[in-house]
Amino acid sequence: MSQLVNIPEATRKRLVQLTNLLKLHQENKITSKKISELTGWSETSIRHDLWLIGYNKGVSNGYETQNLLQKISEVLGIETSGDISNNSNAAGTDQISVKNSGKNLCIVGLGRLGAALLDENLTGGSSNFHIKAGFDTNIYRVEILRSIYSLYPASEMNFVIKRENIQYAILTVADKDAQTMADRLIKAGIIGIVNMTNVVLKVPDSIKVENISILNALKLVI
Amino acid sequence: MSQLVNIPEATRKRLVQLTNLLKLHQENKITSKKISELTGWSETSIRHDLWLIGYNKGVSNGYETQNLLQKISEVLGIETSGDISNNSNAAGTDQISVKNSGKNLCIVGLGRLGAALLDENLTGGSSNFHIKAGFDTNIYRVEILRSIYSLYPASEMNFVIKRENIQYAILTVADKDAQTMADRLIKAGIIGIVNMTNVVLKVPDSIKVENISILNALKLVI
Repeated sequence: MSQLVNIPEATRKRLVQLTNLLKLHQENKITSKKISELTGWSETSIRHDLWLIGYNKGVSNGYETQNLLQKISEVLGIETSGDISNNSNAAGTDQISVKNSGKNLCIVGLGRLGAALLDENLTGGSSNFHIKAGFDTNIYRVEILRSIYSLYPASEMNFVIKRENIQYAILTVADKDAQTMADRLIKAGIIGIVNMTNVVLKVPDSIKVENISILNALKLVI
Repeated sequence: MSQLVNIPEATRKRLVQLTNLLKLHQENKITSKKISELTGWSETSIRHDLWLIGYNKGVSNGYETQNLLQKISEVLGIETSGDISNNSNAAGTDQISVKNSGKNLCIVGLGRLGAALLDENLTGGSSNFHIKAGFDTNIYRVEILRSIYSLYPASEMNFVIKRENIQYAILTVADKDAQTMADRLIKAGIIGIVNMTNVVLKVPDSIKVENISILNALKLVI
């Protein structure tokens, strides 16, 4: 989304989290003080984030919850969904869905972590992510894994990604294969990668990558 | 680590990734240009990161690989380990280990994702993270899961965390339980949390949290 180009990574992350929070907020208004209490972020930082996305409708008694949610969702290119009160207790389900339903997704690398993701609630609830395929270089693994999703050997990646119009991938392969697989995914048409390996991926500027390596995260909390 | 206080989050993340990369670098020297080629980060940003940690030993023909690795590791409070050449092909294994061996870790929430982490290579290779316990509120799940690690009902969390001297937790519970569990973990003595839920955790300033929600990451790559 071109609107995102000038928004710093830390702000984008807070905004995504803020949409989750606003969906659960039962009141019509919310102050930056309240957001700060609920998140631990400073009020200055919250106001700065909202200023960055051109949201200047804050008044002394708070932001309008729905209006704020809608504005953030627009900027992030995601869409709020359904009735809030119906979702407020839906633990574990996605709180926002993506515009242009049909954000198709594949999982690359079906070790225990990748296989676990096949069962995660990534596509349920109000989310519009659709898992379209799982890939692994190990043909035996592809054959024995039971899943409601279609699993393929990695050799069919290029073909399947194009046929199924898949644009996003979660990468959970071994570190040594990460860059090669990323290159193949991008060649096949993938434009966004959630990288769960410990490797820094080298990708063209047009490709978005989010790194969520568990090991790296552990090193950052010590 | 007090040294980290003034280092921005984005820089810390790049530095952790840079240590992984430097361990694999076979040559004595490395230029910011080369780092840029391997990572896609701008040279300016690389030099700025190193300047932030007080590393000013760059000369026109590059940084000394080992010296740079050591400096970054010191600042991050992690320790380089063993012989580099031995590790260079150890795919999937941790490239750096933590000072004061005995960084004890627990996994909270043993759904499919949490259970998968019990098998991840978080503690193998040269890493010094030790998984000491897995917890779940579902006693039945604790009993039937097979693991080389000790699993306990969540009711024993406070006791076990203290007894095993556990300081770090990976949180993979349902969103609705995330804050309650985080509160209990912190009360029991946990000082760092890798938060894999979609919830913004409210924690005291002294507690470090890294958020690696897969759903939030997906929303950030669209």
